[in-house]
This record gives sequence, C-alpha cells and structure tokens, in this order.
Amino acid sequence: MQTIRAGLVGVTGYTGMELARLLAGHPAMRLVLATSRAEAGRRLDDIYPFLIGLPGGDITIVAPDPDVIAASCDIAFLAVPHGAAMEMAASLRERGLRVVDLSADFRLRDVTVYESWYRTDHTRKGLLPEAVYGLPELYGKDVAQAGLVANPGCYPTSVILGLAAALDTDIVHRDDIVIDAKSGASGAGRKAAVGSLFCEVHDSFKAYNLGKHRHTPEIEQELSVIAGEALTVSFNTHLLPIDRGILSTMYLRMKKPLDLDTVHAMYADYWAAHQTRGGWVRLLPKGRLPETRHVKGTMFCDIGLVVDPRTGRLIVVSAIDNLCRGASGQAVANANIMLGLPVDAGLRLAPLMP
Amino acid sequence: MQTIRAGLVGVTGYTGMELARLLAGHPAMRLVLATSRAEAGRRLDDIYPFLIGLPGGDITIVAPDPDVIAASCDIAFLAVPHGAAMEMAASLRERGLRVVDLSADFRLRDVTVYESWYRTDHTRKGLLPEAVYGLPELYGKDVAQAGLVANPGCYPTSVILGLAAALDTDIVHRDDIVIDAKSGASGAGRKAAVGSLFCEVHDSFKAYNLGKHRHTPEIEQELSVIAGEALTVSFNTHLLPIDRGILSTMYLRMKKPLDLDTVHAMYADYWAAHQTRGGWVRLLPKGRLPETRHVKGTMFCDIGLVVDPRTGRLIVVSAIDNLCRGASGQAVANANIMLGLPVDAGLRLAPLMP
Amino acid sequence: MQTIRAGLVGVTGYTGMELARLLAGHPAMRLVLATSRAEAGRRLDDIYPFLIGLPGGDITIVAPDPDVIAASCDIAFLAVPHGAAMEMAASLRERGLRVVDLSADFRLRDVTVYESWYRTDHTRKGLLPEAVYGLPELYGKDVAQAGLVANPGCYPTSVILGLAAALDTDIVHRDDIVIDAKSGASGAGRKAAVGSLFCEVHDSFKAYNLGKHRHTPEIEQELSVIAGEALTVSFNTHLLPIDRGILSTMYLRMKKPLDLDTVHAMYADYWAAHQTRGGWVRLLPKGRLPETRHVKGTMFCDIGLVVDPRTGRLIVVSAIDNLCRGASGQAVANANIMLGLPVDAGLRLAPLMP
Amino acid sequence: MQTIRAGLVGVTGYTGMELARLLAGHPAMRLVLATSRAEAGRRLDDIYPFLIGLPGGDITIVAPDPDVIAASCDIAFLAVPHGAAMEMAASLRERGLRVVDLSADFRLRDVTVYESWYRTDHTRKGLLPEAVYGLPELYGKDVAQAGLVANPGCYPTSVILGLAAALDTDIVHRDDIVIDAKSGASGAGRKAAVGSLFCEVHDSFKAYNLGKHRHTPEIEQELSVIAGEALTVSFNTHLLPIDRGILSTMYLRMKKPLDLDTVHAMYADYWAAHQTRGGWVRLLPKGRLPETRHVKGTMFCDIGLVVDPRTGRLIVVSAIDNLCRGASGQAVANANIMLGLPVDAGLRLAPLMP
Repeated sequence: MQTIRAGLVGVTGYTGMELARLLAGHPAMRLVLATSRAEAGRRLDDIYPFLIGLPGGDITIVAPDPDVIAASCDIAFLAVPHGAAMEMAASLRERGLRVVDLSADFRLRDVTVYESWYRTDHTRKGLLPEAVYGLPELYGKDVAQAGLVANPGCYPTSVILGLAAALDTDIVHRDDIVIDAKSGASGAGRKAAVGSLFCEVHDSFKAYNLGKHRHTPEIEQELSVIAGEALTVSFNTHLLPIDRGILSTMYLRMKKPLDLDTVHAMYADYWAAHQTRGGWVRLLPKGRLPETRHVKGTMFCDIGLVVDPRTGRLIVVSAIDNLCRGASGQAVANANIMLGLPVDAGLRLAPLMP
Repeated sequence: MQTIRAGLVGVTGYTGMELARLLAGHPAMRLVLATSRAEAGRRLDDIYPFLIGLPGGDITIVAPDPDVIAASCDIAFLAVPHGAAMEMAASLRERGLRVVDLSADFRLRDVTVYESWYRTDHTRKGLLPEAVYGLPELYGKDVAQAGLVANPGCYPTSVILGLAAALDTDIVHRDDIVIDAKSGASGAGRKAAVGSLFCEVHDSFKAYNLGKHRHTPEIEQELSVIAGEALTVSFNTHLLPIDRGILSTMYLRMKKPLDLDTVHAMYADYWAAHQTRGGWVRLLPKGRLPETRHVKGTMFCDIGLVVDPRTGRLIVVSAIDNLCRGASGQAVANANIMLGLPVDAGLRLAPLMP
Repeated sequence: MQTIRAGLVGVTGYTGMELARLLAGHPAMRLVLATSRAEAGRRLDDIYPFLIGLPGGDITIVAPDPDVIAASCDIAFLAVPHGAAMEMAASLRERGLRVVDLSADFRLRDVTVYESWYRTDHTRKGLLPEAVYGLPELYGKDVAQAGLVANPGCYPTSVILGLAAALDTDIVHRDDIVIDAKSGASGAGRKAAVGSLFCEVHDSFKAYNLGKHRHTPEIEQELSVIAGEALTVSFNTHLLPIDRGILSTMYLRMKKPLDLDTVHAMYADYWAAHQTRGGWVRLLPKGRLPETRHVKGTMFCDIGLVVDPRTGRLIVVSAIDNLCRGASGQAVANANIMLGLPVDAGLRLAPLMP
Repeated sequence: MQTIRAGLVGVTGYTGMELARLLAGHPAMRLVLATSRAEAGRRLDDIYPFLIGLPGGDITIVAPDPDVIAASCDIAFLAVPHGAAMEMAASLRERGLRVVDLSADFRLRDVTVYESWYRTDHTRKGLLPEAVYGLPELYGKDVAQAGLVANPGCYPTSVILGLAAALDTDIVHRDDIVIDAKSGASGAGRKAAVGSLFCEVHDSFKAYNLGKHRHTPEIEQELSVIAGEALTVSFNTHLLPIDRGILSTMYLRMKKPLDLDTVHAMYADYWAAHQTRGGWVRLLPKGRLPETRHVKGTMFCDIGLVVDPRTGRLIVVSAIDNLCRGASGQAVANANIMLGLPVDAGLRLAPLMP
C-alpha cells in the first residue's frame, strides 16, 4: 500500500497536536506538511518535543500556501479557526485536494444560522452543498464520496451519538430536551488567555455559555434530521479541570413509561443497525455509567442509560474524548473513509488508564 | 467572653477535619475533645500535622464516651456516619448537651422515607420532633431555640438555596425540576476505597447515582415546604476531580415568560428579606455565573441566573464549598446561633484563590 | 485602634490577588486603593468575584499615581514586576510613604549582581542602603525601623528558613549545598502565556532554569550572611501541577557524623531562639516530612530533617505556601511590624485541608 | 505469524491494568488469561470498562493456578507483590513457562541485600542465577536467552538510563551522587489506603522515604556494574499529584570541568552505541529539559543535560512513564525479546498530549 501524504493546516492548537499524534501512529497515512505562520521554519518536534523520533516529527513547519499544499499532499486537514478555514478550504478544493475541515465553517446547512451564531459572514456559501457532515456512523456512505467533509464539533458529537437512538425510536418528547454538558480544558484551545491558565481552571468548576453556546444550532440541525422534524434543545456547557473529555448528561421525558430493559434493547438494536463503521459506540451494560477516563485518547463514545420512574424521565449519559473522537480522531476516520482505507486505520486505540 | 468548649465526635473524616480547621480560628469556641476509636490516644496534630501550633492541635483523641463528652463540653458536633449518629445524639441529649448532627439521621421528618432511602431502622424516632433543620437563612430562629440541629446535607444546601426564591415566588412549574449537581471528591468521605483513589478520580469525570441519590428526599422535603405543596425533583449527581465544591445547575420551566431583569429582581428581593443571618448568599450580577473556586473554604453560596427565551427555561446555578458551607461551617453557624454568638463568628472567611 | 489604610500597586497578578484576600480578613488594615492600568475603572470584585461582599471588594481600581497613593494610604504594597517597582518605590518614599516591595528590586545588596542576573539597569541604587530584607524571623528588628522593605522571594524564603539552623551551627560543608526546589504554578504569575495554560501544566512535571534561576544570588547573599562567609549553592527549580506551594529538598554533607537526635535538637534550639516573631516555623517531629498542603494558605514554614548515615548527608525539607508565606502574607507581616501591629495580625491562618 | 498467548498473574493493580492496555494493541501477543483471587469469575471488561470491545476484554478472570497458566499460555507476566511473585515464578518455571516478573523478587543478585531491604525471606534463591535484569538497552542479549526476566523497578529504570553514560565515560565522582526523584501516584499501587485518596494527594506534594527507598539497592547494584566498582547513592523520592510519570533530577560532580557540548556528545555517542534495541532513549537537544507529559503512555526515556560551571556539577534529568517504561511496557519489551519478536512490537506508541 502506498503511503498517503497528509497536510495539516494549523499545527499549533490542540487539534493540530492531536492530529500529529494520531498520524504518527497511522499505518498508511503520513504527515508530510504542517503549517503555522508563527512557527514557520521550526521543526515540528522542536515545538512538540513529544514527537522526537516519531514519524512526522522531523518535518519543517511552513507558512500556509495552497499551491504547495495541493502539490505535496493527498489530503488536507484544516485545524484553523472558523472564518479562516472557509477560504483555505475553497482554495484547496479548487486545486482538487480532498479536505477535512475541523472548523465550524461548513457544518451548518443554513448560512443565515451560521452567520447569526458565529457573527461573521460566510464568504464561501457555494461550497456548502458539497460539504458532508462527517459523523462516520450516520453519514459514512456520503463521506466516502465527499471532497469536503465538515468535521463535527466536539459537543455535538457527544450529544448526537447519545440521543440518536432515543429520537429515531420516537420514545421521548422532542420539546423537552435538556443537555448538561461538561468539557475538559483542551476544548478551549491553546490560545494564551488568562481564563485558561492552570491556576484559573485547576481545582475549580464553572458553568459558561448557558443557553447560548455556538454548538447549539449544529446539535439542533442534526437532531432534527434524525427526529424528522425541527426541534429546539436547551444546551448548556461547563468547564472541567481535566485535559480531555466531554461528558453530556441528557434529560428526556418519555412519551410513555418504559422500563430500562426496553430502552436498553432499543438502543442496542439501533446501534447494531448503525454501527457498520468503526464499532466505536459502546452501549454500556445496564446499571453502568460512562467516565471520561474510559475513553481517553480514543474514538469510543460510551453511552449509559437511566430510567427514572419517579419523574418519567430517560437520562442518557455519553462520554467521548473531545480531542480524539470529538475532533482529530474523527477527522482521521473521515479521511480514512474518503481515501478507501479501513475506517479505523490508525484508530484502534486503547484508552490510557489511569 | 467565656470560651465555649466544643466536642467533636468522629474526627477522622473530612467533615471532622474541617471542623478542626474552623474551630482553630474561632474567636469564642475551642475544640476541647475529639473522638475516634481507631486513633484514640494520639494527639490531634499527630494525625493532622496541619494543626501543629494551632488551637486544638494539642488535644489527645479519645474513644467516644457520652458521659465524658457531656461533662467536658458545652456543645457537641457529630461527624459520624448516619445510623451511628442517632444513638450518640440521644445519649448526649439525655445528658442535656446541645448537639449539631452532621449526619442524615434527623433531617427527614418522615421516618418511613428515612428508612426507605437509607435502608436502616431509625431507632430514635422520638427525637425527630425536636430536631431543627439547620439552614440558617431559612430556619435561624428555630435553631436559636434548638437542642438538636440536623445539619443539612451538602447537595441539599446548594439546591435549596438556589431554588428557594424561584419556588417562593411561584414563577416556575413544580413538576419539571431537573437538577444536575456536581461535587468534589471530599464529598465521598475519607474511607479507604479503591474508587476514591487519586488515580481513579484525577483527570476524569463521571455521573453516579442518577435519580437515586439519598439526598433526594431531603431536597424534596425542603422544597415542598417552600413551595407549599409536595413536589418531586429529578436529582442527579456527578463526581468532580477537585477537593471541594458543589456546583448545581438547575433547569426550571417558567410559568410565563419573564426576562432576566425581572427574575433577578425577584431573587434580589427574596434574599434581601431572608438574608437576616450571615449575608452568605451572593446573588451574582446579571451575566455572571458561579465558579466553585470563588467560594472555596467559605460559607458563601453564589447564585447565577440565566433566562433562556428559546426554551422558556430559567436556569439557576449555585455554588458552595461542600465541606464548609455544605457541612462543617454550617454546623459552626448553627452552633453559633444556638449559643447566642454572632452567626458568623469564626466564619468571616475569604475564599482561597487560586 | 484606627484602621490603617493600605494601597496595592498592581492588583491583577496572583500576589495582588493574595494581598486582597489577606487584607479582607485583616483586623486593623483595610485595602483602600488598588491600581492597574488595564483594569482602571472597574470594581475590584468585578475582576475578582470571590471578593463580593468582603472588605475591600467594593473599591474601584485606579491607574497608579504616586500622589494619590501617598495621599490616601498609610502604607503601600508593590506587586508589580521588577524594574517597574523601583521607580514607584522611589516616588512613594519621596512622598514619605512606607513601602513593602514584593519585587526583587531591593533584595540584592550588590547592584552589579542585580544587574547581571536581572539584565536590567538599577535606576534607584540610592535607595538600596535603606531597604531592609524582610524575613521577619531574622530581620524583624530592622523591619520595625524601615521605610522600605524588600520582601523576600518565594524560593529564597523556603531555602533560607530551611538552612539557617544548619549553617548557623556550622555542621555542614558550605561548598556542597544542593537545593532541589519545586513550586506550584502560581509562582509563574498570571500573565497569559501558552506555557502556563492548564493543559500544559496539569498532570505533568518538569525541571526548568536548572542552575540559573534568578533567585540564586538572593539565596547565596542571605545564606552567606548566616554562614559568615561567601558561599555558592546549586539551586534548581521544578514546576508542580498545583496552585500553591513550594517544597525544597536540600542536600548537605555533614562535617562530622551526627545522628538525627542531635541535629533535630540543634534545629529546635535555633528556632527557639529566633522565633520571637510569628511562631510560623514548625520543626516537624523526627520521622515526619512536610507536605505543601499542610501549609496551604498560611504563613507556616514546615521543616523536616533526615540524616542519611549511608552517605553522610543531612537532608532538609522545607515547605511553604509561595503566595502567602513566600509573598503576600510575608508582606503583610512586614507591614504589621512596620506599623507597630502584632506581627501576626490577620495572619493567624489555619491551612485549608484538603 | 501465530498469535502468542499471554497470561497475566495479578490483574487488579495498575501494572496489571497497563499490561491489559498494551496487550490490547499488540499485533502478535494476546491476553488469554488473567488472574485475581478477589475478582475471579468476572469478565475483565466488567472490572475495567475501558476494555469493552478491545482484544482481551472478554476473558473471564480466574484464580491463579500454575497448571492452568502453564497449559494455556506461552508466557506469563507476574504483576503481584514481591514475596508472592517468587513462588509463582518458581511454579511456572518448573512447568517450563517463560516468565517476566514485575516484582522485585529477582532483581537483586545478593539475597542478603534483598532480605534486608524487603524484610522478607527469599524462598527461591535457587532461581536467582538464571534471572536476567530486563533493561533492554543494556541487557537485551541476555534477555533473548532468558526463561525468567526480573523486570526493573520504575525509579531504577529512570536513574540507570539517566546515569549510564556519565558513569561509563567516567566523568563524574562516584562517591557524590544525589538523586532527587519524583513519581506520579500510580507508583503507589491500587490498594485502598487513605494516604492514596484523591483528597490526600491532589494539589499537594511531599517527600517520602528519603534515603531509605527499597529501590536504592537495585540502583546501586546496576550503577556499580556500569561503573565497574561498588558505589553508594543518595536516593530520595517524592510523590507528585499526577497519574503517571517519574522525573529524576540527578546531581553529579564532574571529575574535571567539561562544557555542555562535550558532555552532550559523550551521551550521544554512548546511546548511539547502546541503543541497538528500541530507540526509546531520547537525548534532548542542548538547552531542553524533559517533562513527564512528553513520555506519557510510552516507552521513551527523555534525558536532558545541564552543566553548571558555578558549582562544577553535571545535572542529569530523566523522565519516563512509570507504568509503561517503568513497568508493564518494559515487561512487554522483554517478552518480545524472549519470544523473538521485534523489541518494539506493540510499543511504537506516541505520547498522549495533552
């Protein structure tokens, strides 16, 4: 098998770092190009000493140039902020390169929703129709045909995988969905900001962006597709003093009383039917609940179910690694699919415990 | 002012440790007796070197003996597990001693509810009528007359203070209350257990006891009193990798649409009327949300409000220190009230930041 | 007693934050002025919500102006970077104000040493002779007469207190002192820097500045005074993933074999003679070693001793809280002495455990 | 290639957990048997949910029985405490099974040294001569012939790899070696003990076992071999609030002044000659120092060098992952060598960052 050449646009953030980690262990794809205006000219393992001696560690970072990227790569990962990604995606698509965009720029079908939540103009609307929302379990077939994949957000990945079965089977009220999500600090990115300093995050916990996180429309868009009708969710986020991990606790009201056996079986059936790619969704045994450490560094999405007969609620808990499953690992999975590799090439990862 | 002699029954847990810390800085109360069967004979500052040189550090731990406690103390704090506390409380009350019980044994009015949730017989039902639920802002006047105070649970303290204003003003539906609570690891106690080891808790996050935490009936009992009718809540708990702190995110549906200004003003009015003791409830300015570090080591309960017009919900976030406000500090406040001291004697504490 | 008015120049760093915390609980001193160019115009409790409802929280931050500070304060604390402090100190001294400078600008007697290690010109050499090195146990009498106190560095405080007895009693070789020091992340300050982000510090540990930390000449200056001759140390620093705390492990070769009983007694005698102020040095019982948590939030310096007969070494371990004892608490102690208050006014603090 | 069947004796500790993780990703070796008296009868992924869906997760834990182990495995890993390991090793060797023992039972050549430091009788002295000390870079050739490998201790691995070049080249005094080592909490094991609870370890740091850690004789034995003469070290340990990682800072006095260029080149030459297996020792570029996160979850040993001309010292800093390189990963490497597999089969791991 010929080695596939991967380019990484934007290497200095945590998703760029995670892509470098994953590609260092990929059997068929190799990082051959990494860009950063600030770090151009340095070796990758000079800014990331953890890569010394590993594949890709010895490449020299360059400033981003679409011509160079298109000429030297078979696929490009965009790990730059929203707004910046759309232009680079367009430039690379014009040059015929496959692109996996980790930003939000091509996730929302409705450009007015994008512009309203992200408070920026979308300058490449024309590309939206060809972009595929890259959740492998649900849209793998489309990804296989895609030239441009919009890699899902971290929170949306945890929520959509957690709620898909409940909405598909139509057992819960669609107008009463409360999502209490908690994310590790790497989700805030690697920008120098006082609020992200160790002493501001460590040994503390806080809520933020309640009711107004930018991932809300992405969650509503995708859940509405599954539900077959437009729905609105109460989506609320918190900051955990951990490096990696998202745990979403989701509160649903059941349309009619079901016991745990029944709901668990419905979830099992749903995932048996949809898990054609990856096998990463792990429905936990009855009585077990997810922990972020159990998925650390991997593609797994662990799902636990609770039926509370006192309140008639179904509570779904899902856990993912926000950097791997919620960003860079999912991007590699999408690239694998686009390139005809096994979806889990380089992604058969065991969690780091403890 | 004569120094008041305090006895601490059960010194080896985190609430015992916190009582020792708080009494070391109390201007009028002094720890004169501390009990532990396992550690009897050792100096207190030998098992807790942080107390070396501080008031109380030089006492010798003894095995618990009601006669000795009653003879040498003016008040006793019970920091032993539920079940064990009820007998000791009875023995000390018989000897005329004032008692603040930090366990759950006298919190629930309905003994069948207690026996069902705690799976143990209540052998001292006769004492229940005289026990006062010790939430100073709401029941301070009763505490002042009490011989036996049932010190509130940590989670209930965070929930009741957060929801009291919303229920008292009758602006939310009482049949749709979802509480997503998160607690630091000291809440699990100081027992040697694999699940509480550093490597099992650190850098991870998990849900536990969803829909079935023992603090549920206590929350429902007290919220029902405020609401004036019986209500049921969905109460759900999570374990944070921090030492101290509880943050509860509470999802309410408003009876009619209110804007944030209105709800904030109602909360401000409520607490202006009820905050006759302590001044510890801090309603945050509009747009601000609590963080556990802002209350660390103190009696504060910080409350933040969010109105989400998209879903018609009011979201209330409250933060306390589970060991201080949620246990030992509140116990000292109750003792202060019982003994005629200023409620905040020894409790005018500034948070440790960072 | 009339309340003493304190001014804080530079409120946005961790030492400024800690001063605000300590003054909020001080019985005789009140924070009446706090400066920051970036935050001028905001209320202090707006940038630091943990101060809401506490003394000092309601003041409005102003830009630094020596005339205003001198007119409205009885004493000023300088919590600004070295270089900036020297000019402000001079301006305030000219106006007759007492000053405690937390920076390094007036700690080194020899201005060429200062200029070489700090790579900046000293523009206020004239003030050096009047500056007193503010280690209360050793120089309290001088501090009482001082107009300008150079508050010791955090690492030097931990080292000098740990080694003073061994050097004073002349039991160790002075040419073979190895100091392996470890500090919590607040020691790196509150600047927005990628290297201080949560995800860069958490769950990791590293060495830095081995053999070339700027606190080296300060340590050598003060140990030389105690030893009565010039000495050189190997001083080496590490970054701990904790908020607060410095633990220094110090390796000494004994001039002749002494057993632990003997060395421990010598330390006890030394501190019995020198601990006239504060009582904060705690020589631990034989066999016990310090932990940073045992001094968290306090002025204590815990010292543990080990004699290793296999290698003829005396190992001294000291632990302090870098923000309290190593900076702001020590500054308050110095201010107390300068103002004729009890040295421990506002500083009788119990460690926050856990 | 036929799959090699691996047995794991003692699965409930952190080294057992790490072996399960590593074997789940091994291309040629499969975990087919895991023992625990306490957990016998449960599925492995029931006690370790992180293994759900991964190779080995579905095996059922059994009580240890040498006959069963010998019959069903090609190699056995012993992850039980010292004392227990020696008997099991003997039973399995009698049955002809290859054994990698992760305990200390066969590491020390001199049985009296073992019995003195470990305070237990060695009941299987007869096996000592055949046991090979399994440090792949130094003893790989012997490991290839061995039936019983004594897997090195975690601290000794970090120290020996760090000091080998300096001792082999004879540039430092052998009678003045000070080792200040710091380890993450997983090194203390997975026993339920109050001292290992989250709230006792988190946000704190302490020294322990100064001058008397049991790894001392192992370090001295192996460094003496390299040095060609008996030597004594001052070895001192500390507990870090991290899951994984050991960082050792080692203070050496140079026999004659050498500059960093020279020492760095000598280290580079030494490791060029000795790194025939694995390529895991990474000598960092001049001016760089190790961080534990850069080796997390891997076999790497990062080494940084500092020459301090002020004191004539060479300071060597080494970092490893105590569970992977310092225990289970090294055990897999030894098994790979014993079985004729590539030494790094299943061990080409990239660090998890952050």
